[in-house]
Amino acid sequence: MESNRQNYHLPDNFIKYQDIIQQSLRPALNLNPEELNLLGHYQMGWVDEKGNTSIGSSGKALRPSLCLLACDAVGGSIDHAIPLAIALEIIHNFSLVHDDIQDEDLLRRHRPTVWALWGKKLALIAGNAMRTSADMSVYSLQSLGSTSSHILYAINQLTERYLEMIEGQYQDISFEQRTNVSTQEYLDMVEKKTGSLIEASLHMGAFAGNASFEQVSALGKFGRLIGLGFQVRDDMLGIWGSTETTGKGHGSDINRKKQALPVLYAFENGNDLTKRKMAEIYSKDMLTPFDISEAIQLLDEVRAKEYCQQVAEEYMNQALNALKDAKLTEKWEITFEQLANFMVLREF
Amino acid sequence: MESNRQNYHLPDNFIKYQDIIQQSLRPALNLNPEELNLLGHYQMGWVDEKGNTSIGSSGKALRPSLCLLACDAVGGSIDHAIPLAIALEIIHNFSLVHDDIQDEDLLRRHRPTVWALWGKKLALIAGNAMRTSADMSVYSLQSLGSTSSHILYAINQLTERYLEMIEGQYQDISFEQRTNVSTQEYLDMVEKKTGSLIEASLHMGAFAGNASFEQVSALGKFGRLIGLGFQVRDDMLGIWGSTETTGKGHGSDINRKKQALPVLYAFENGNDLTKRKMAEIYSKDMLTPFDISEAIQLLDEVRAKEYCQQVAEEYMNQALNALKDAKLTEKWEITFEQLANFMVLREF
Repeated sequence: MESNRQNYHLPDNFIKYQDIIQQSLRPALNLNPEELNLLGHYQMGWVDEKGNTSIGSSGKALRPSLCLLACDAVGGSIDHAIPLAIALEIIHNFSLVHDDIQDEDLLRRHRPTVWALWGKKLALIAGNAMRTSADMSVYSLQSLGSTSSHILYAINQLTERYLEMIEGQYQDISFEQRTNVSTQEYLDMVEKKTGSLIEASLHMGAFAGNASFEQVSALGKFGRLIGLGFQVRDDMLGIWGSTETTGKGHGSDINRKKQALPVLYAFENGNDLTKRKMAEIYSKDMLTPFDISEAIQLLDEVRAKEYCQQVAEEYMNQALNALKDAKLTEKWEITFEQLANFMVLREF
Repeated sequence: MESNRQNYHLPDNFIKYQDIIQQSLRPALNLNPEELNLLGHYQMGWVDEKGNTSIGSSGKALRPSLCLLACDAVGGSIDHAIPLAIALEIIHNFSLVHDDIQDEDLLRRHRPTVWALWGKKLALIAGNAMRTSADMSVYSLQSLGSTSSHILYAINQLTERYLEMIEGQYQDISFEQRTNVSTQEYLDMVEKKTGSLIEASLHMGAFAGNASFEQVSALGKFGRLIGLGFQVRDDMLGIWGSTETTGKGHGSDINRKKQALPVLYAFENGNDLTKRKMAEIYSKDMLTPFDISEAIQLLDEVRAKEYCQQVAEEYMNQALNALKDAKLTEKWEITFEQLANFMVLREF
């Protein structure tokens, strides 16, 4: 996106949890009957639609990795964070199954979506069953000797943040029927829809590592803020990102007429002519390459990219302030700074 | 249904919980934002689609009443069962919201369904949010001084039975694509889909009343069995019930080509001619009154009604045996017998 760009990447000790996450996920998602299990395992990217082992289509496992990282960082044993990490990843995937039904999306991670293969009825039920497996994973802490009050705290935290995520999903959908969504409303929605579960990931991980209340809260807050920054960055890449780095075409969010942050900013802060032209483009059924170029030009005129960059950096600064309150060792602080940089400034 | 029928009705001390249930439900279902709350409150029958107070369309509140009854019967204070009763009723209603989306049903309790009014996207999300409120209701036991291990037990029980219900829903839907479902498979499905949450209702109620493990298990088992009997009776009423008593027309389940227990029995036990004729009727797009009469005659020939009656009574006898193990006082035993009679032998 920038000409002399830095190469932001995930910290090395972030990636190292992938194997343990994948190994622990499988036994945790074990639904009855076998056909229902197939839908769950397909969504997780472990099998193809016939149940044969497939590879390479699981997600990034961002939330469980964050959970284990937070536990590690406060000096905890990750054993007690694993069931929580697994619950987070299953909740995330369950919400994708339901999202795809809602949006009637046919593809996810380059494969047909669950509903596209098995129909909406079964996909809806499979999602609900997955959600339940997430709860079961948290209970499994009992067999590791966790106290009931400890487990209950974790379940409560997961449920509250998940409910917040639902509220965000609701707002997101209700925005589709409006043309006057403000940037502030949009950022509030993102905080709930994306920030809440990322907050839960770090909060629960630090909690599992027996961190102090201050550390748990500070890392949770850090998570919420980098979640917000992540989404703002995503909105920028969806318009100004290049195909090579993002896999989305230049202007792809414009083409989908997404009410992304830069677009809402233009509607809010452009002059009358800009607003009218943007509204004209967004009212068309199908956009031409010319429409897309014109929309990007309008965004550039109101300096929407600079605005977004400023918002993303503001979230990152707030996140780094929260990080200080977590009082991690220097080694870990560097890891979390690297993480924040990746989330908020990444090129892909 | 029978000429010299007895008037089975719900026990008086079953109905007395209605007020406390309705009063406790409202504060427990409090979603954000307000528009999302509207969908939940509409489903519960408290408001019309504009949010104005409406009356008379809540359900029977069967599950929460069973929960409070079980708590009462073991000598417990119902205060501690109320949050569980509320959770059960909310879970039940959430599952109806999702069911209606799946089946594309336009009416529920004589009103448009949630998805019919607000669309599938929002209805799906509202259902998920309701499900979360059920969990929150269980946590609220904390403010009543319940121990964490007590609350965790209840949450675990609710989750496990709910997961069983989902498995049953899955089987039910997968049966739609088959023509060779056996009566045994059907009853296994009903046990999960209907029996599990009714088991949970009594199990959790007795647990909240600090009953012994034996009492809790016995009442739960009783619940599962009357749940099964209830559904078998429902299948009989859907074919041989009269419009006055059931609100469904005579043969209405035939008209909907439902794979109800009597029909599956005929497919399983009829001679070749019966099977062929039934298959012919069930393969038609639309049935005439003549088709319906003929189907009922075929069912009568194989004595499907007598078979179902026998199955229902067998479940009732098993339920009454389980009831003995619960070792209730005589007064309460009579109440539960009356309840079993109503569930399994009712005329409406």
